[in-house]
Amino acid sequence: MPVGTQGTVKAVTKDQLLSTKPQIILGNTYHLYLRPGVDVLKHFGGLHRFMNWDLPILTDSGGFQVFSLAKEKNVQGKHKTEVILTEEGVKFRSHLDGSWHFFTPELVIQIQEIIGSDIIMPLDVCPPYPVSHTTARDAVEKTIRWLERSKKAKKDNGQALFGIVQGSTYPDLRRESALKTVEMEMDGYSIGGLSVGEPAEFMYEMTQIVVEILPENRPRYLMGVGTPENIVESVDKGVDMFDCVMPTRNARNGTLFTHYGRLNIKAAKHRLSDDPVDPECDCYTCRNFSRGYLRHLYNAEEITGMILGTIHNLRYYSLLMEKIRDSIRKGRFKQFKKEFYDKQSVVK
Amino acid sequence: MPVGTQGTVKAVTKDQLLSTKPQIILGNTYHLYLRPGVDVLKHFGGLHRFMNWDLPILTDSGGFQVFSLAKEKNVQGKHKTEVILTEEGVKFRSHLDGSWHFFTPELVIQIQEIIGSDIIMPLDVCPPYPVSHTTARDAVEKTIRWLERSKKAKKDNGQALFGIVQGSTYPDLRRESALKTVEMEMDGYSIGGLSVGEPAEFMYEMTQIVVEILPENRPRYLMGVGTPENIVESVDKGVDMFDCVMPTRNARNGTLFTHYGRLNIKAAKHRLSDDPVDPECDCYTCRNFSRGYLRHLYNAEEITGMILGTIHNLRYYSLLMEKIRDSIRKGRFKQFKKEFYDKQSVVK
Ligand SMILES: [Zn+2]
Ligand SMILES: [Zn+2]
Repeated sequence: MPVGTQGTVKAVTKDQLLSTKPQIILGNTYHLYLRPGVDVLKHFGGLHRFMNWDLPILTDSGGFQVFSLAKEKNVQGKHKTEVILTEEGVKFRSHLDGSWHFFTPELVIQIQEIIGSDIIMPLDVCPPYPVSHTTARDAVEKTIRWLERSKKAKKDNGQALFGIVQGSTYPDLRRESALKTVEMEMDGYSIGGLSVGEPAEFMYEMTQIVVEILPENRPRYLMGVGTPENIVESVDKGVDMFDCVMPTRNARNGTLFTHYGRLNIKAAKHRLSDDPVDPECDCYTCRNFSRGYLRHLYNAEEITGMILGTIHNLRYYSLLMEKIRDSIRKGRFKQFKKEFYDKQSVVK
Repeated sequence: MPVGTQGTVKAVTKDQLLSTKPQIILGNTYHLYLRPGVDVLKHFGGLHRFMNWDLPILTDSGGFQVFSLAKEKNVQGKHKTEVILTEEGVKFRSHLDGSWHFFTPELVIQIQEIIGSDIIMPLDVCPPYPVSHTTARDAVEKTIRWLERSKKAKKDNGQALFGIVQGSTYPDLRRESALKTVEMEMDGYSIGGLSVGEPAEFMYEMTQIVVEILPENRPRYLMGVGTPENIVESVDKGVDMFDCVMPTRNARNGTLFTHYGRLNIKAAKHRLSDDPVDPECDCYTCRNFSRGYLRHLYNAEEITGMILGTIHNLRYYSLLMEKIRDSIRKGRFKQFKKEFYDKQSVVK
């Protein structure tokens, strides 16, 4: 899922995004609530119409952002942000202007009903990494109680509501959280609180534990993950859905993904290169422009470079998922995985 | 002519640019010489192939940039830049890294032959505004002598070489410059050294004086101009071609042109607006998105906003030129001009 936090996937128009063949995009309740604001989204009849976007949208609840942006901004000292967590909900300060806001599970469902996304997430408690077992347990239990309230608050309007599994890097808590969430028979299941700074092996271990408990006939969504390698490994463990800022963020700073590994397009070695970014890619950028031209655009700090890099990286990720799905359909995922790693190690 | 200084029109891809229906774009010899560099352009077989651009390209000689960027950077104090003007050519420091370079009329022709642009400009001496009559006269005379050398240096390869008329805001010098340039029977004529800070009435007065001397059967190009009003007025005086950063630069800061005047898309009044930027525009942006959505993108500092704004502004300018050409063909330019001003005053 390409990430479109604030009502657009960064640095592309909707048609450029469509050309990369996404199946669904991600929006963010926290960001959209703060800006443009719920009244604007209501006026325009929801996010699909606001963005003029016909494909599915999934919105994250904002739980992760409430906690992580508060922390981030404290470090930067830009706005004094704080988070006050109670049973009722979470009080937080906007990272934009420092104003106070209060999210409850019910409000977050209502906001997402106005947003009109196809898949919605309940408000969850997402502690940072590392965190004590006690705090992690509190987060798991509160997340479950909030899920019950979310389910109750939700209209029967066709929007799919997922449950979010928490538990930090504690196997017992991950099991408990997964079991209790599955009991609630949700439309799908998200694995939250990973890819927040923990070593990759912890992420894989927790994913493994949780996925074994989740029903196979429901989508299993690993939130905020990840690199192409992370995705291939997690699919191997049974994950179906991912979202990550990596393709778009990396594109803006000049790191482009290829079937042969990552490439720093600003590097001097591409100066006279007639090659496309990735010879195996069918995107607009690879069909039209050389590495030499892209390198020039990035070095000259032209926005056009970011646009072309974003198109390529998004297509790289969607192609990766296409190939994964195809290999699973044909019962040859293990072989695909081997080929994937073999190519990555080829120096190009 | 959309301005594509550094090998791209800013904030759009070539297909987005094509969708705005330009006839020709402008590149800059000074910028392209410094970055990506002549060896890169040579390797790729010229700017058309480097950019993958099939329509015509005009390149400015760099005369204006050598003088104006030197001045600009001195003010900012970023790099110590200086310009040393001799009969042979002009020695200058790069605004990028302070390195010394030397442009002669012959070298500038050779660079543009490597760039492979369809219309090329000779190296000229472009003094700032205001400037003394003596300095302005020197600039006129040197520009003529350099034009002779440029003409001699140029291969017979199908590239069109224009002459550039200088003379600051002095009627006698403008006349002298125009007469001497016309004597040299160039492929077209540029009016340089205007739109450099002088009052608009001076610009119109000088344009009038020069255009009356230029042959009607050759393109007359007013460099670096301007607002929609400047263009309409200058066409009225007989100008055929323009280039300006205004549509692209203004788009990036949120000023959008419409048939009813300019619009600050960030303004609060557009928050709930379902209207397109300009109801009379047929661009991608106006066909797909509301002012309310664009306002959100600009306020959230999304690059997508700049892309959509640039597409609209470029199309606004190309539509303006289409309408001007059409009205001239039908012998109703005066009527068009009246309607243009009548609409501009409608508050929208
Ligand atoms: Zn590509
Ligand atoms: Zn438009």
